[in-house]
Amino acid sequence: MTSVAQAAPALDVPSGRPATIPTPEPGDPRLRRLSLNQRTCAGWSLREAVDGCVAAGLGSIGVWREPVAEVGLDTAVRWVREAGLRVSSVCRGGFFTVSDPHAFAAAHASNVEAVRETAALGAATLVLVPGGLPEGDKDLPAARERAVEAIAALAPVAADHGVLLAIEPMHPIFAADRGVVSTLGQALDIAEEFDPATVGVVVDTFHVWWEPGLEQQIARAAGRIASYQVCDWITPFPADALLSRGMMGDGHIDFPGITAQVSAAGYTGDVEVEIFHADVWAAPGADVVATMARRYVELVEPSL
Amino acid sequence: MTSVAQAAPALDVPSGRPATIPTPEPGDPRLRRLSLNQRTCAGWSLREAVDGCVAAGLGSIGVWREPVAEVGLDTAVRWVREAGLRVSSVCRGGFFTVSDPHAFAAAHASNVEAVRETAALGAATLVLVPGGLPEGDKDLPAARERAVEAIAALAPVAADHGVLLAIEPMHPIFAADRGVVSTLGQALDIAEEFDPATVGVVVDTFHVWWEPGLEQQIARAAGRIASYQVCDWITPFPADALLSRGMMGDGHIDFPGITAQVSAAGYTGDVEVEIFHADVWAAPGADVVATMARRYVELVEPSL
Repeated sequence: MTSVAQAAPALDVPSGRPATIPTPEPGDPRLRRLSLNQRTCAGWSLREAVDGCVAAGLGSIGVWREPVAEVGLDTAVRWVREAGLRVSSVCRGGFFTVSDPHAFAAAHASNVEAVRETAALGAATLVLVPGGLPEGDKDLPAARERAVEAIAALAPVAADHGVLLAIEPMHPIFAADRGVVSTLGQALDIAEEFDPATVGVVVDTFHVWWEPGLEQQIARAAGRIASYQVCDWITPFPADALLSRGMMGDGHIDFPGITAQVSAAGYTGDVEVEIFHADVWAAPGADVVATMARRYVELVEPSL
Repeated sequence: MTSVAQAAPALDVPSGRPATIPTPEPGDPRLRRLSLNQRTCAGWSLREAVDGCVAAGLGSIGVWREPVAEVGLDTAVRWVREAGLRVSSVCRGGFFTVSDPHAFAAAHASNVEAVRETAALGAATLVLVPGGLPEGDKDLPAARERAVEAIAALAPVAADHGVLLAIEPMHPIFAADRGVVSTLGQALDIAEEFDPATVGVVVDTFHVWWEPGLEQQIARAAGRIASYQVCDWITPFPADALLSRGMMGDGHIDFPGITAQVSAAGYTGDVEVEIFHADVWAAPGADVVATMARRYVELVEPSL
């Protein structure tokens, strides 16, 4: 019975279709730069996510502040070190477009704490999600200006801690309520005002795949790409816009093309898979990680 | 009883809240440039939409090809002329990003027919919705190139008929399946290759409100704005992305600001309200038109 079960083909998550290639085994050098953003396996605790990465042979993990806080920073640091994992990113700082001065100061204080956590974890970068428009406020240019001011205030703190901040341009669907930096070009306009050792950008395929002139913007980002994150754009668009990220290969994004551009721009860091999707979250974490490893070695890794 | 019913405050659609200003009466000069895109009242036939515009005192209507075809082009032309309405736009040409040569030729033929209909209706412009990626095709730059080729093929036809084509940049949420032209800047890059009497752009607040540098792009569009369309960006994002357009004032868009920029760019045409929203569609058409007239005179018209 056991051998029959083992011979059954693995099923891709969330499509349910048989896998088209074998799952790479732990130790496979192609997995070296693959990172699991822990929100991709939302049902896993940090401990489970660390163990899941090790079991699958991944080199890296992207962590979120809340699950790190749940176990305590020292414990989180110890776990990832003992597991031999890199931390590809800490998610997330930002949300600093608030207009109320007290809220603005509170956001800065939280981001200073996030910088400290990022340094303690030895993470490659702290991802900054800028935030949206304050309630009832329709002045998008002003909100964007506040994001720039907040980054300018945070940059010296990051420099002191040796932390690289990564401005995440977010798909325009989120401009109102989540991220007022909407294109890679706009993120670079901001980042280029700062030392590249302190302020870079995230290239997340979901957010920027549609951008006119993307190839030129990725080339322009040479030396500024702090994080490369992959997931797919799927249609029809799911009912919850926040849960609309698909498994690589299930949607419309040209991963070999964009990956080659990111690689040509000199990016040598980890490649983080960050998928928010109800059916992915409902699946066993190990199956999710196995699918993402297969899709990664098929669609992404060969172009790195 | 009648007087009591008349005294009851009108309710805004779809919020259900009492109107904050009186509904402008037919003959109010502020309504002169207001146009109802007929899909805003999806339950109305073309006849009902024409009558609804007249009853509300609007100066203009935006028509769709399918309901025009239902009654026949000649009848549609007669109805709008007898009603004394301008036709602010014909929706829609485009969908010419197909890669199959036969489908590409068929799209061109359909667009030639749309040009003829636009000329017959004396409409201000034919709106071009470019189309998305062909099934299974992930080459977005190539699809964008095909859109440019198709416009180049259609432009001489439009010039022969005295028709102004309007490239509609569409919100990036539609880049995969509906419109590969994603920003006003990109639309202008294309339009500027042609005579401004033949190829212009649509400025639709829903599609472009988030665009970094929007003010500069609208200024750049001077002499190229073929249509100004208004509706709001609402959150939370509705379950159906196609039905996510809100009534002006119900969302996050700065209508006075964007309208002033469009006006400063020299736009003197009609202002079309195009709302796709399940609750708007479910409401009586007259109530929808009354709400949009109130919101228009409150948020848009003063900045024209």
